[in-house]
Amino acid sequence: MPTWMPPDEWAALKRGDGCVLCEDAHQDVNVFGSKIADLTWSWFRLANNQYLPGWTVVTLKRHATELFQLAPDELAGYWADVARAARALDRVFQPAKINYLVMGNICPHIHCHLVPRFYSDDPTWPVNMNQEQGILPPDQYAARLDALRQALTDA
Amino acid sequence: MPTWMPPDEWAALKRGDGCVLCEDAHQDVNVFGSKIADLTWSWFRLANNQYLPGWTVVTLKRHATELFQLAPDELAGYWADVARAARALDRVFQPAKINYLVMGNICPHIHCHLVPRFYSDDPTWPVNMNQEQGILPPDQYAARLDALRQALTDA
Repeated sequence: MPTWMPPDEWAALKRGDGCVLCEDAHQDVNVFGSKIADLTWSWFRLANNQYLPGWTVVTLKRHATELFQLAPDELAGYWADVARAARALDRVFQPAKINYLVMGNICPHIHCHLVPRFYSDDPTWPVNMNQEQGILPPDQYAARLDALRQALTDA
Repeated sequence: MPTWMPPDEWAALKRGDGCVLCEDAHQDVNVFGSKIADLTWSWFRLANNQYLPGWTVVTLKRHATELFQLAPDELAGYWADVARAARALDRVFQPAKINYLVMGNICPHIHCHLVPRFYSDDPTWPVNMNQEQGILPPDQYAARLDALRQALTDA
């Protein structure tokens, strides 16, 4: 069974020591995917793995691990960013529902996974983003990035 | 495989027609669990099923299905409530991490599942709150309610 890192290392990572998201969440392209947009308090990114269509992540710009560590304006601003990203997903994918998942059990830097859910899914399925791999042809991936960027700018 | 309800019925439920959470989320005790506290924009409730210790839910008082449907003050206030609830969980359970899950694929009324995660878990496990059943003796359940209520009131 995969295990957590030792508690002292986990505590250091929670403080931000060696945090991967601090290092690469701002990049246009990183190992996880491509940046859709630079939002006010966060970056909005499209996963390379699109086996779940529209799997995206909204990552807080500064390092924090739990929602109660955020100042009121930061907490409000972060969720306004997430809501804006979700609206764009809703426009592009027209899902049955959007799921919003803040976990951070691997990298404890606040990020919200957005996963559109469709009528073709099992609604009771616990979301496992990495259960399968679905890599799009580059032109289709680029079209998805463009569609989400356009949807963000629509009133 | 479990399926979604037919799209027209799902659309009606999204509008609030027949919404179970509108009906019972304010009650002191309902089929899901017991109310811990009446927060500003939401109710904070402890699941009867405590196989995942600290599984709680923060339910928005009014019916809405997606975060982008909320007004800015409502969105900010709801997440301030969730953060306050999470801080109480952190104090009582001292988990490795807290997971925050807004899904609504069964009942599309905004509610956030709070699931403390522990070093004894598999950190990669996709949270499935109903995978097992764990019903506490009544005195232990009551003690958990009391501890969370006390932690909410601490400065």
